[in-house]
Amino acid sequence: MIKRINSEVYHLLHPKMTFFLTSISRKGVPNVMTCAWATPVSDEPPIVVVCVSRDSHTSALIRQTREFVINIPVKRQLEALWICGRTSGRDVDKFKEAGLRYHPGRMVRAPIIEGCIGYIECRVLRCVVAGECNAFFGEVVTAYADTRFFKRGSWVDTAEIPFHLAGRKMVYFRG
Amino acid sequence: MIKRINSEVYHLLHPKMTFFLTSISRKGVPNVMTCAWATPVSDEPPIVVVCVSRDSHTSALIRQTREFVINIPVKRQLEALWICGRTSGRDVDKFKEAGLRYHPGRMVRAPIIEGCIGYIECRVLRCVVAGECNAFFGEVVTAYADTRFFKRGSWVDTAEIPFHLAGRKMVYFRG
Repeated sequence: MIKRINSEVYHLLHPKMTFFLTSISRKGVPNVMTCAWATPVSDEPPIVVVCVSRDSHTSALIRQTREFVINIPVKRQLEALWICGRTSGRDVDKFKEAGLRYHPGRMVRAPIIEGCIGYIECRVLRCVVAGECNAFFGEVVTAYADTRFFKRGSWVDTAEIPFHLAGRKMVYFRG
Repeated sequence: MIKRINSEVYHLLHPKMTFFLTSISRKGVPNVMTCAWATPVSDEPPIVVVCVSRDSHTSALIRQTREFVINIPVKRQLEALWICGRTSGRDVDKFKEAGLRYHPGRMVRAPIIEGCIGYIECRVLRCVVAGECNAFFGEVVTAYADTRFFKRGSWVDTAEIPFHLAGRKMVYFRG
Protein backbone atom coordinates (compact mmCIF):
# COMPACT_ATOMS: atom_id res chain seq x y z
CA MET A 1 0.00 0.00 0.00
CA ILE A 2 1.31 3.42 -1.00
CA LYS A 3 0.77 6.09 1.63
CA ARG A 4 1.39 9.80 1.59
CA ILE A 5 4.11 11.04 3.95
CA ASN A 6 2.99 14.23 5.62
CA SER A 7 5.82 14.96 8.02
CA GLU A 8 9.53 14.34 8.27
CA VAL A 9 9.72 13.59 4.56
CA TYR A 10 13.52 13.66 4.92
CA HIS A 11 13.35 10.23 6.56
CA LEU A 12 12.77 8.84 3.07
CA LEU A 13 16.36 9.86 2.22
CA HIS A 14 17.79 8.24 5.35
CA PRO A 15 19.79 6.29 6.49
CA LYS A 16 22.45 8.96 6.04
CA MET A 17 26.09 8.94 7.07
CA THR A 18 26.37 10.81 10.35
CA PHE A 19 29.46 12.86 11.11
CA PHE A 20 31.00 15.49 13.34
CA LEU A 21 30.85 18.86 11.59
CA THR A 22 33.52 21.12 13.04
CA SER A 23 33.94 24.87 12.72
CA ILE A 24 35.76 27.72 14.42
CA SER A 25 34.97 31.31 15.39
CA ARG A 26 36.89 34.33 14.21
CA LYS A 27 38.51 34.43 17.63
CA GLY A 28 39.63 30.81 17.35
CA VAL A 29 37.02 29.07 19.49
CA PRO A 30 36.19 25.68 17.93
CA ASN A 31 32.78 24.05 17.78
CA VAL A 32 31.32 20.70 16.79
CA MET A 33 27.85 19.49 15.87
CA THR A 34 26.43 16.21 14.66
CA CYS A 35 25.19 16.35 11.09
CA ALA A 36 23.88 13.92 8.50
CA TRP A 37 22.68 16.21 5.74
CA ALA A 38 25.52 16.28 3.26
CA THR A 39 26.27 15.11 -0.24
CA PRO A 40 29.04 15.33 -2.79
CA VAL A 41 28.15 17.96 -5.40
CA SER A 42 31.05 17.79 -7.84
CA ASP A 43 33.94 15.42 -8.38
CA GLU A 44 36.26 17.70 -10.32
CA PRO A 45 36.82 20.07 -8.58
CA PRO A 46 35.71 18.27 -5.42
CA ILE A 47 32.82 20.14 -3.81
CA VAL A 48 30.46 18.99 -1.06
CA VAL A 49 27.41 20.55 0.52
CA VAL A 50 26.45 20.42 4.21
CA CYS A 51 23.07 21.64 5.42
CA VAL A 52 22.64 23.03 8.93
CA SER A 53 19.95 24.94 10.77
CA ARG A 54 20.17 28.69 10.25
CA ASP A 55 19.73 29.12 14.01
CA SER A 56 22.64 26.90 14.91
CA HIS A 57 25.90 28.13 16.39
CA THR A 58 27.69 26.17 13.66
CA SER A 59 25.92 28.23 10.97
CA ALA A 60 27.08 31.44 12.63
CA LEU A 61 30.67 30.21 12.84
CA ILE A 62 30.82 28.92 9.26
CA ARG A 63 29.51 32.26 8.06
CA GLN A 64 32.23 34.00 10.08
CA THR A 65 35.26 32.00 9.02
CA ARG A 66 33.98 30.25 5.89
CA GLU A 67 35.49 26.88 6.64
CA PHE A 68 34.37 23.55 8.06
CA VAL A 69 35.52 19.96 8.44
CA ILE A 70 33.54 16.76 7.97
CA ASN A 71 34.90 14.22 10.50
CA ILE A 72 33.70 10.68 9.72
CA PRO A 73 33.25 8.72 12.96
CA VAL A 74 33.13 5.10 14.02
CA LYS A 75 30.59 3.15 16.04
CA ARG A 76 32.36 3.59 19.35
CA GLN A 77 31.94 7.38 19.09
CA LEU A 78 28.15 6.96 19.01
CA GLU A 79 27.54 8.46 22.45
CA ALA A 80 29.63 11.51 21.50
CA LEU A 81 27.55 11.87 18.34
CA TRP A 82 24.34 11.97 20.39
CA ILE A 83 25.80 14.50 22.81
CA CYS A 84 26.99 16.78 20.00
CA GLY A 85 23.59 16.49 18.36
CA ARG A 86 21.46 17.62 21.29
CA THR A 87 23.39 20.52 22.79
CA SER A 88 24.55 23.87 21.43
CA GLY A 89 28.11 25.12 21.45
CA ARG A 90 26.68 28.46 22.54
CA ASP A 91 25.90 26.91 25.91
CA VAL A 92 28.49 24.23 26.56
CA ASP A 93 31.94 23.09 25.51
CA LYS A 94 30.76 20.09 23.53
CA PHE A 95 34.25 18.66 23.08
CA LYS A 96 34.60 18.43 26.85
CA GLU A 97 31.03 17.21 27.31
CA ALA A 98 31.50 14.46 24.73
CA GLY A 99 35.09 13.61 25.65
CA LEU A 100 36.42 14.52 22.21
CA ARG A 101 40.02 15.52 21.62
CA TYR A 102 40.92 17.67 18.65
CA HIS A 103 43.64 19.56 16.91
CA PRO A 104 43.70 22.07 14.04
CA GLY A 105 43.06 20.89 10.49
CA ARG A 106 45.90 20.54 8.02
CA MET A 107 44.72 23.29 5.69
CA VAL A 108 42.03 25.07 7.73
CA ARG A 109 41.87 26.34 11.30
CA ALA A 110 38.66 24.46 12.08
CA PRO A 111 39.50 21.45 14.27
CA ILE A 112 39.67 17.81 13.38
CA ILE A 113 38.49 15.25 15.90
CA GLU A 114 40.84 12.51 16.98
CA GLY A 115 39.78 8.92 16.49
CA CYS A 116 37.69 9.56 13.39
CA ILE A 117 38.55 7.60 10.25
CA GLY A 118 37.97 10.16 7.51
CA TYR A 119 38.32 13.92 7.22
CA ILE A 120 37.21 16.38 4.55
CA GLU A 121 38.50 19.93 5.06
CA CYS A 122 36.52 22.57 3.20
CA ARG A 123 36.45 26.25 2.40
CA VAL A 124 33.03 27.74 1.74
CA LEU A 125 32.34 28.74 -1.84
CA ARG A 126 28.77 29.74 -1.28
CA CYS A 127 25.96 29.72 1.26
CA VAL A 128 22.43 29.11 0.01
CA VAL A 129 19.48 29.79 2.31
CA ALA A 130 16.85 27.06 1.93
CA GLY A 131 13.93 26.82 4.33
CA GLU A 132 15.16 26.57 7.89
CA CYS A 133 18.73 25.72 6.87
CA ASN A 134 21.85 27.06 5.28
CA ALA A 135 23.37 24.89 2.56
CA PHE A 136 27.11 25.50 2.65
CA PHE A 137 28.93 24.57 -0.55
CA GLY A 138 32.49 23.72 0.40
CA GLU A 139 35.45 23.27 -1.86
CA VAL A 140 37.53 20.37 -0.57
CA VAL A 141 41.00 21.69 0.25
CA THR A 142 42.28 18.38 1.54
CA ALA A 143 40.84 15.00 2.49
CA TYR A 144 42.38 12.00 4.21
CA ALA A 145 41.33 8.69 5.67
CA ASP A 146 42.48 5.80 7.82
CA THR A 147 43.85 3.17 5.45
CA ARG A 148 42.72 0.34 7.73
CA PHE A 149 39.15 1.23 6.80
CA PHE A 150 39.38 3.05 3.48
CA LYS A 151 40.97 0.72 0.94
CA ARG A 152 41.33 1.09 -2.83
CA GLY A 153 38.97 4.05 -2.88
CA SER A 154 36.14 2.80 -0.69
CA TRP A 155 35.13 2.07 2.89
CA VAL A 156 35.32 -1.52 4.05
CA ASP A 157 32.51 -3.11 6.08
CA THR A 158 34.53 -3.13 9.26
CA ALA A 159 34.55 0.66 9.27
CA GLU A 160 31.11 0.52 10.93
CA ILE A 161 30.34 4.13 10.18
CA PRO A 162 27.07 5.16 11.86
CA PHE A 163 24.18 6.05 9.54
CA HIS A 164 21.17 7.82 10.98
CA LEU A 165 17.85 6.18 10.20
CA ALA A 166 15.31 8.03 12.37
CA GLY A 167 14.97 9.12 15.98
CA ARG A 168 17.51 7.18 18.04
CA LYS A 169 17.96 4.51 15.37
CA MET A 170 21.33 4.09 13.70
CA VAL A 171 22.33 1.44 11.13
CA TYR A 172 25.57 0.11 9.67
CA PHE A 173 26.26 -1.33 6.27
CA ARG A 174 27.59 -4.66 5.03
CA GLY A 175 28.87 -5.48 1.56
CA MET B 1 47.71 5.09 9.00
CA ILE B 2 46.12 8.28 7.75
CA LYS B 3 46.53 8.83 4.03
CA ARG B 4 45.65 11.74 1.82
CA ILE B 5 42.90 11.09 -0.74
CA ASN B 6 43.82 12.68 -4.03
CA SER B 7 41.01 11.60 -6.31
CA GLU B 8 37.35 10.67 -6.03
CA VAL B 9 37.13 12.32 -2.62
CA TYR B 10 33.36 11.84 -2.87
CA HIS B 11 33.82 8.17 -2.08
CA LEU B 12 34.41 9.22 1.51
CA LEU B 13 30.75 10.27 1.66
CA HIS B 14 29.52 6.99 0.20
CA PRO B 15 27.70 4.61 0.51
CA LYS B 16 24.83 6.78 -0.67
CA MET B 17 21.25 5.87 -1.40
CA THR B 18 20.89 5.35 -5.13
CA PHE B 19 17.69 6.28 -6.89
CA PHE B 20 16.01 6.90 -10.22
CA LEU B 21 15.86 10.63 -10.89
CA THR B 22 13.06 11.33 -13.33
CA SER B 23 12.35 14.46 -15.32
CA ILE B 24 10.36 15.56 -18.37
CA SER B 25 10.91 17.86 -21.33
CA ARG B 26 8.73 20.83 -22.17
CA LYS B 27 7.20 18.71 -24.93
CA GLY B 28 6.34 15.94 -22.47
CA VAL B 29 9.13 13.44 -23.19
CA PRO B 30 10.17 11.78 -19.93
CA ASN B 31 13.70 10.84 -18.89
CA VAL B 32 15.39 8.89 -16.12
CA MET B 33 18.92 8.75 -14.74
CA THR B 34 20.55 7.00 -11.83
CA CYS B 35 21.69 9.37 -9.11
CA ALA B 36 23.10 9.11 -5.61
CA TRP B 37 24.06 12.69 -4.83
CA ALA B 38 21.15 14.03 -2.83
CA THR B 39 20.40 15.18 0.68
CA PRO B 40 17.56 16.69 2.64
CA VAL B 41 18.18 20.42 3.09
CA SER B 42 15.24 21.55 5.21
CA ASP B 43 12.52 19.76 7.15
CA GLU B 44 9.97 22.58 7.37
CA PRO B 45 9.30 23.36 4.57
CA PRO B 46 10.62 20.09 3.12
CA ILE B 47 13.41 20.83 0.64
CA VAL B 48 15.91 18.43 -0.92
CA VAL B 49 18.87 18.94 -3.20
CA VAL B 50 19.94 16.68 -6.08
CA CYS B 51 23.25 17.15 -7.88
CA VAL B 52 23.66 16.16 -11.50
CA SER B 53 26.23 16.76 -14.19
CA ARG B 54 25.72 20.03 -16.04
CA ASP B 55 26.23 18.12 -19.31
CA SER B 56 23.50 15.59 -18.61
CA HIS B 57 20.21 15.42 -20.44
CA THR B 58 18.50 15.40 -17.04
CA SER B 59 20.04 18.79 -16.21
CA ALA B 60 18.70 20.23 -19.44
CA LEU B 61 15.20 18.87 -18.77
CA ILE B 62 15.06 20.00 -15.13
CA ARG B 63 16.10 23.48 -16.23
CA GLN B 64 13.29 23.43 -18.82
CA THR B 65 10.40 22.26 -16.70
CA ARG B 66 11.73 22.87 -13.17
CA GLU B 67 10.49 19.63 -11.69
CA PHE B 68 11.91 16.22 -10.83
CA VAL B 69 11.03 13.06 -8.92
CA ILE B 70 13.24 10.96 -6.65
CA ASN B 71 12.15 7.32 -7.10
CA ILE B 72 13.59 5.07 -4.37
CA PRO B 73 14.25 1.60 -5.76
CA VAL B 74 14.67 -1.90 -4.40
CA LYS B 75 17.40 -4.47 -4.89
CA ARG B 76 15.69 -6.28 -7.74
CA GLN B 77 15.82 -3.08 -9.83
CA LEU B 78 19.63 -3.10 -9.64
CA GLU B 79 20.20 -3.95 -13.30
CA ALA B 80 17.88 -1.11 -14.34
CA LEU B 81 19.86 1.25 -12.08
CA TRP B 82 23.08 0.32 -13.86
CA ILE B 83 21.49 0.75 -17.28
CA CYS B 84 20.08 4.17 -16.41
CA GLY B 85 23.44 5.20 -15.02
CA ARG B 86 25.53 4.47 -18.07
CA THR B 87 23.44 5.70 -20.99
CA SER B 88 21.99 9.09 -21.90
CA GLY B 89 18.33 9.81 -22.58
CA ARG B 90 19.56 11.90 -25.51
CA ASP B 91 20.52 8.70 -27.29
CA VAL B 92 18.16 6.00 -26.10
CA ASP B 93 14.79 5.46 -24.48
CA LYS B 94 16.14 4.38 -21.13
CA PHE B 95 12.77 3.25 -19.81
CA LYS B 96 12.54 0.76 -22.65
CA GLU B 97 16.19 -0.22 -22.37
CA ALA B 98 15.87 -0.88 -18.63
CA GLY B 99 12.38 -2.38 -18.75
CA LEU B 100 10.89 0.33 -16.56
CA ARG B 101 7.22 1.21 -16.60
CA TYR B 102 6.09 4.66 -15.50
CA HIS B 103 3.17 6.99 -15.19
CA PRO B 104 2.85 10.71 -14.44
CA GLY B 105 3.50 11.97 -10.91
CA ARG B 106 0.63 12.99 -8.64
CA MET B 107 1.54 16.67 -8.51
CA VAL B 108 4.13 17.04 -11.27
CA ARG B 109 4.29 15.90 -14.89
CA ALA B 110 7.66 14.16 -14.46
CA PRO B 111 7.10 10.40 -14.35
CA ILE B 112 7.18 8.04 -11.42
CA ILE B 113 8.63 4.59 -11.90
CA GLU B 114 6.52 1.58 -11.06
CA GLY B 115 7.83 -0.88 -8.51
CA CYS B 116 9.78 1.66 -6.48
CA ILE B 117 8.98 1.95 -2.78
CA GLY B 118 9.31 5.68 -2.19
CA TYR B 119 8.67 8.81 -4.21
CA ILE B 120 9.52 12.46 -3.62
CA GLU B 121 7.98 14.86 -6.15
CA CYS B 122 9.72 18.23 -6.33
CA ARG B 123 9.48 21.64 -7.92
CA VAL B 124 12.75 23.46 -8.39
CA LEU B 125 13.28 26.49 -6.16
CA ARG B 126 16.78 27.20 -7.30
CA CYS B 127 19.65 25.86 -9.38
CA VAL B 128 23.18 26.40 -8.10
CA VAL B 129 26.11 25.76 -10.42
CA ALA B 130 28.94 24.04 -8.53
CA GLY B 131 31.93 22.61 -10.36
CA GLU B 132 30.83 20.15 -13.01
CA CYS B 133 27.30 19.83 -11.60
CA ASN B 134 24.05 21.62 -11.07
CA ALA B 135 22.63 21.44 -7.56
CA PHE B 136 18.86 21.60 -7.90
CA PHE B 137 17.03 22.66 -4.75
CA GLY B 138 13.58 21.13 -4.90
CA GLU B 139 10.60 21.92 -2.75
CA VAL B 140 8.77 18.69 -1.97
CA VAL B 141 5.24 18.98 -3.31
CA THR B 142 4.24 15.48 -2.30
CA ALA B 143 5.96 12.33 -1.04
CA TYR B 144 4.69 8.80 -0.55
CA ALA B 145 6.02 5.37 0.26
CA ASP B 146 5.15 1.69 0.34
CA THR B 147 3.91 0.95 3.85
CA ARG B 148 5.32 -2.58 3.72
CA PHE B 149 8.80 -1.05 3.83
CA PHE B 150 8.35 2.39 5.38
CA LYS B 151 6.87 1.97 8.84
CA ARG B 152 6.38 4.50 11.62
CA GLY B 153 8.52 7.04 9.81
CA SER B 154 11.49 4.95 8.75
CA TRP B 155 12.65 2.30 6.32
CA VAL B 156 12.77 -1.26 7.57
CA ASP B 157 15.75 -3.54 6.86
CA THR B 158 13.81 -5.62 4.42
CA ALA B 159 13.48 -2.65 2.10
CA GLU B 160 16.96 -3.52 0.78
CA ILE B 161 17.45 -0.12 -0.84
CA PRO B 162 20.68 -0.09 -2.87
CA PHE B 163 23.44 2.23 -1.64
CA HIS B 164 26.32 2.99 -3.94
CA LEU B 165 29.74 2.41 -2.41
CA ALA B 166 32.18 2.73 -5.34
CA GLY B 167 32.52 1.43 -8.89
CA ARG B 168 30.19 -1.54 -9.27
CA LYS B 169 29.88 -2.07 -5.51
CA MET B 170 26.52 -1.62 -3.83
CA VAL B 171 25.66 -2.25 -0.17
CA TYR B 172 22.49 -2.70 1.86
CA PHE B 173 21.64 -1.86 5.43
CA ARG B 174 20.83 -3.86 8.51
CA GLY B 175 19.44 -2.44 11.73
